[in-house]
Amino acid sequence: MTAAGSPLGPVVLIGAGLVGASIGQALTRAGETVHLVDANPAHARVAAERGAGTLTSVAAPHEVGLVIVAVPPRAIAGVVDEALDTYRSAAVTDVGSVKEPVLRELMEHRSLGRYVGSHPMAGSHLPGPLAADPELFVDRTWAITPHPDAEPAAVAAVTRLAELCGARVISLAPDEHDRAVGRVSHLPHLVSAAMAGHLLGVPPEELSLAGQGLRDVTRIAGSDPALWQQIVSANARMLVPELRALTKRLTVVADQLAEPGADVAQWLGDGVAGTRRLPGKHGRAPVDYAEVVVEIPDAPGSLARLFADVDAAGVNVEDIAIEHDPARLVGHLRLSVRPERRAELDRVMTGSGWTVRPA
Amino acid sequence: MTAAGSPLGPVVLIGAGLVGASIGQALTRAGETVHLVDANPAHARVAAERGAGTLTSVAAPHEVGLVIVAVPPRAIAGVVDEALDTYRSAAVTDVGSVKEPVLRELMEHRSLGRYVGSHPMAGSHLPGPLAADPELFVDRTWAITPHPDAEPAAVAAVTRLAELCGARVISLAPDEHDRAVGRVSHLPHLVSAAMAGHLLGVPPEELSLAGQGLRDVTRIAGSDPALWQQIVSANARMLVPELRALTKRLTVVADQLAEPGADVAQWLGDGVAGTRRLPGKHGRAPVDYAEVVVEIPDAPGSLARLFADVDAAGVNVEDIAIEHDPARLVGHLRLSVRPERRAELDRVMTGSGWTVRPA
Repeated sequence: MTAAGSPLGPVVLIGAGLVGASIGQALTRAGETVHLVDANPAHARVAAERGAGTLTSVAAPHEVGLVIVAVPPRAIAGVVDEALDTYRSAAVTDVGSVKEPVLRELMEHRSLGRYVGSHPMAGSHLPGPLAADPELFVDRTWAITPHPDAEPAAVAAVTRLAELCGARVISLAPDEHDRAVGRVSHLPHLVSAAMAGHLLGVPPEELSLAGQGLRDVTRIAGSDPALWQQIVSANARMLVPELRALTKRLTVVADQLAEPGADVAQWLGDGVAGTRRLPGKHGRAPVDYAEVVVEIPDAPGSLARLFADVDAAGVNVEDIAIEHDPARLVGHLRLSVRPERRAELDRVMTGSGWTVRPA
Repeated sequence: MTAAGSPLGPVVLIGAGLVGASIGQALTRAGETVHLVDANPAHARVAAERGAGTLTSVAAPHEVGLVIVAVPPRAIAGVVDEALDTYRSAAVTDVGSVKEPVLRELMEHRSLGRYVGSHPMAGSHLPGPLAADPELFVDRTWAITPHPDAEPAAVAAVTRLAELCGARVISLAPDEHDRAVGRVSHLPHLVSAAMAGHLLGVPPEELSLAGQGLRDVTRIAGSDPALWQQIVSANARMLVPELRALTKRLTVVADQLAEPGADVAQWLGDGVAGTRRLPGKHGRAPVDYAEVVVEIPDAPGSLARLFADVDAAGVNVEDIAIEHDPARLVGHLRLSVRPERRAELDRVMTGSGWTVRPA
């Protein structure tokens, strides 16, 4: 094992998908020696060709300093267990998105002190090593979740791994981590999927009235169900109470609406207050931006011309979104700017011949 | 009243907020005479100054051809009732987003045949007449919801109103309309608000792990709770069974996850299938676009340079989204293109010096 700042020593990387291969590239670039292992030889070969490491063994098992397990969620505990036995001096980590259940499965292992879980919070819906990128983790959050018996040298090695990948390290207890991602990632996924699944019962002529709101709410429900099955079932212990609480909240509003003259303004106000609690762009405090909505013709070049004019206005755009009008061949570009710059941007864009709509 | 194609005759427009004033502008531009009425004299004055009509009476009540009621949802039925009595030859419509309860309140009116509800599907979160725009309804959907006893001349007048505003008219029974908007607009709003309200119980350090998914799911929950209280309580009859069904769906997945070894892949797969049922951009069949993700520095001008290079690539961008990285001063621009154009755009952007990330 290694102290912070020194090389990790020979690394074994098990699982050469997007996350594993991207880690391999980052470590190789940092001068580390990485041995790639994958149950799918094609994955390992592609990852090696893309600079994520080598397919040949680089050290005797007892000389390996760090083993990184980047396999699908349900396989993690078994592979970590085996790695602790095979690599007798190595720190072992995994990069799965749920931490406590893996630890529970390993609890009886006599070398548990060398295992420290981690979770780099970056990814992609393209799962293979072809999409690997050594910059994938740069300035992203990488959660490290040491258990009480974790050896300091193992914690240092995993911290060093995250640092070599350019990530911003935060340390959390495994169950703290799982509760947090359950609430801010897994629960919203299930809520989105419930709304999207409900649409199976809605006839097409009704769906033709759908606008941007429904699209936003259901976007993440389109992600790979096989991967999400593994994530949410692994985190079921944290998720079930959150789901019950959310279901209760929906039952409350349904019960209220079932009464004549229902007033659910307070219930809706809680939603408004909840959205205000989300950190703003770049982790700053939330800001209420003003919006300027510009009509964009659906033709190559119109966005370039539009942004050239925005640029000429000298107003920094904080956020953008395109809203497509289902009924016509145009979209609207929603430009978010600091409130004090809204009038100026509106004036310049209108002066440049763009149609500025009520936001 | 008026036949399709002919002038509407003098119009009385009651309620000079955003929607009312925008209608007034469109009708005035089309050569109609519009008399503006608003309980708030400042609203009426601003609307008149912005070309939405005149504050002085334009005709004797019995000569008025059309009355348009554009007041807040809970006031609609009362104002329509009064208008049917005051303007004895006029067609009367309203522009509220829930139709059947208004009709039920008016059911006893002896002149019900002259009332035809409608719902222009455009709006803004800026409620006042200052944001009025005669183009607000151009090529938008305008639902017309005639009841069985509606007089053909009244239906023709309201259809003509929507046409003069440039809208695309669809005709639905009032309860069909309410069921459809309940499912594709009001229910997603409550789902989003439930998720956002749930965040009130999540500590800030956990919220700092939130990504784009949670932001998308909760975006519409930030809208005006006073307006949405009126909408969802008016449509409670349609909404409550939908809410119960959605709650049931969440209970099903919670119960499944409460069992050891739960497999919710099928449940998640229903969500994926649901997202695929939403019509694609411009009402075309859904298309699976490919994505190219480009890193954008957070500085004025970078979007202009970026889109100039996209333009030079000659690839039509179908959709865009900015994803902000909470941890650093950059965002990622997600460009959706037809799958066969992805490689070309990636190549050109990389060649122009942009950092293209795995999508």
